[in-house]
Amino acid sequence: MKKTYLFTPGPTQIPPEVVLAEASPMIHHRTSEFSDIFANVSENLKYVFQTKDGEVFTFASSGTGGMEACVANTLSRGDKAIVVSGGKFGERWAQICGTYGVNTVKIEVENGKAVDPAVVNDTIEKEQDAKVVFTTLSETSTGVIHNIEAIAKVVKGRNLLLAVDGISGIGVQPFKMDDWGIDIAVTGSQKGFMLPPGLAFVCVAQSAWDSIEKSDLPKYYWNLKKMRKALSSKTTAYTPAISLIMAAGKSIEIIRSEGIEKVWARHAKLAHATREGIKALGLELFANDAAGNVLTSVKIPKGVNFDAGIKKLRDETGVTIAGGQDELKGKIFRVGHMGYVNEFDIVLAISAVEKILHEGGYKVELGKGVSRVQEILVG
Amino acid sequence: MKKTYLFTPGPTQIPPEVVLAEASPMIHHRTSEFSDIFANVSENLKYVFQTKDGEVFTFASSGTGGMEACVANTLSRGDKAIVVSGGKFGERWAQICGTYGVNTVKIEVENGKAVDPAVVNDTIEKEQDAKVVFTTLSETSTGVIHNIEAIAKVVKGRNLLLAVDGISGIGVQPFKMDDWGIDIAVTGSQKGFMLPPGLAFVCVAQSAWDSIEKSDLPKYYWNLKKMRKALSSKTTAYTPAISLIMAAGKSIEIIRSEGIEKVWARHAKLAHATREGIKALGLELFANDAAGNVLTSVKIPKGVNFDAGIKKLRDETGVTIAGGQDELKGKIFRVGHMGYVNEFDIVLAISAVEKILHEGGYKVELGKGVSRVQEILVG
Repeated sequence: MKKTYLFTPGPTQIPPEVVLAEASPMIHHRTSEFSDIFANVSENLKYVFQTKDGEVFTFASSGTGGMEACVANTLSRGDKAIVVSGGKFGERWAQICGTYGVNTVKIEVENGKAVDPAVVNDTIEKEQDAKVVFTTLSETSTGVIHNIEAIAKVVKGRNLLLAVDGISGIGVQPFKMDDWGIDIAVTGSQKGFMLPPGLAFVCVAQSAWDSIEKSDLPKYYWNLKKMRKALSSKTTAYTPAISLIMAAGKSIEIIRSEGIEKVWARHAKLAHATREGIKALGLELFANDAAGNVLTSVKIPKGVNFDAGIKKLRDETGVTIAGGQDELKGKIFRVGHMGYVNEFDIVLAISAVEKILHEGGYKVELGKGVSRVQEILVG
Repeated sequence: MKKTYLFTPGPTQIPPEVVLAEASPMIHHRTSEFSDIFANVSENLKYVFQTKDGEVFTFASSGTGGMEACVANTLSRGDKAIVVSGGKFGERWAQICGTYGVNTVKIEVENGKAVDPAVVNDTIEKEQDAKVVFTTLSETSTGVIHNIEAIAKVVKGRNLLLAVDGISGIGVQPFKMDDWGIDIAVTGSQKGFMLPPGLAFVCVAQSAWDSIEKSDLPKYYWNLKKMRKALSSKTTAYTPAISLIMAAGKSIEIIRSEGIEKVWARHAKLAHATREGIKALGLELFANDAAGNVLTSVKIPKGVNFDAGIKKLRDETGVTIAGGQDELKGKIFRVGHMGYVNEFDIVLAISAVEKILHEGGYKVELGKGVSRVQEILVG
């Protein structure tokens, strides 16, 4: 009896009521029926981004498409940008900027560490002509949370924008578009939003429109000015991913009825329990001080072929844990705990980790991890 | 008792078994389980495009995104392109080319007419330095089918590529990538593929790769070289729209088991019956000689507020017929008959048209249209 459980840092589990909404009869997108659904989704998205003055635009695309929209709309030919690069996804900002010929200054951050806001400050001082700072809320490849609130303070009052990749972070880790003063942020549907992949949400503050109006980088599908015009008529510029938007109507309603602060607190508690369970097994966390609510990254102990264990676990039980990516492959594993996750899921996740370790020949006292999780979550 | 029936030219009805596949438990996309599903979808897509040597790339996006991928990958800075513009979607090629600073020569075609391949020939003769001809198989805004086979003959043997927007046409109207010698073609999921919107399929023939390798227009998400590298590992460059791809696994299997020639023939028969039913009501077709299998466009008779009738019909019964777009708004209506459609659907569609006309005060002999449809499809 296999049962699918995703402890991957996206895609995540989808509540049955959201799946049902996704499976609703198809409707046409140029109708008042769709516009009402879409207007409601767009309004609820503002709540998740914690913005009153900003607008949220929904693209049929993966999160990366939304990142490209941020770059292609805020910058112009010959502009300079600062990129905080602390892993695969921070580096993606630099790659996208490079594609558009943007003069890109990278702040390299060691894998597993968060950027020091003072270094961002120094870089801005040095690169006075930079137009945008691109950074990451939750670096999915390492589990690190960058201190966006502190970075925003550094950027504030200067003549440049702050763009945040919140793809695995928003809806999981505290994020406040208006209070912190973020200019543009992007997230994807397949993380804290409890949806299948296929939607990117781009939130634009009023402060970003000057740059967007001036931007001369080529974009058609990603054109935010066209999307803004469409949103004012409760629709999208091009055919929306209707079934995913129907699903979003339900999932964001679930988030809103729990309340965003409670959603963040639930994730914080579950993340804490996961870390404690891992430590009780004698394993070492990868992103120790810099870890957040989204996922727990763990150093693979010497002598254990953990990736083989992940595959065996998935094939035999349907439980999926993630390995490391690129240069971290074989060095870390990652337990995602975002979205449709409660205390019993964490018990299950840690019991799965125990199983992999045990079967991989690593000396583990079975039950020690799950007991620690129980103490924290039930005790 | 409202029942949803979509006779819109996209999105279209989705078979229940496809909806069930879409609602399958979410799986992670970097697994052999997903790769096997995706490899099967990609292989079956080649069948629908009728290609052996080409490759089909699946983007999480609307069809317009796939069109942008065609432009951004085949052209380079300062290149010249020829665009056949015979409606909203032909014009979209010109808009996208314009966005990228491509020197665009337009062949303007009257709304409701197909382009004359001799005119394409003359334009190519005149514009010897053009690199790509962009054209449309099925112009969704008017119901016109352009003769792609004949245009391909004109382009063949010359030093330029033929790019086809097959968004509402492929899987409905005959289309043969290899036999006709198309270099690059795009379609969307929400038409003949019987899927929700959210996927664009871009088919690239071997003949297009030289231009793609050389192309220097900026693209990150739309980068076909990266997609090709990913496809060789049975995956996509960025997170795929997993639930839609699961659905595609089922829907393209349905197409394949019916057989593409039979799919085309079914649509041809249903389209013919629709046109005859419309004519029996005394209405005039808009794209008479140039009409195809995809949709039937009809001139709205004087004095009837047909758009109000469409809205009333939808609100009261759940049956959706489409009006005209942009400058054709209020002048034509469109009955889509593509994808998950059989003879009884056409009876229903024509009975709905009769109802709108009757309620709109137009003198119509009730039953005359559906009788004609019966004669053709049952007789």
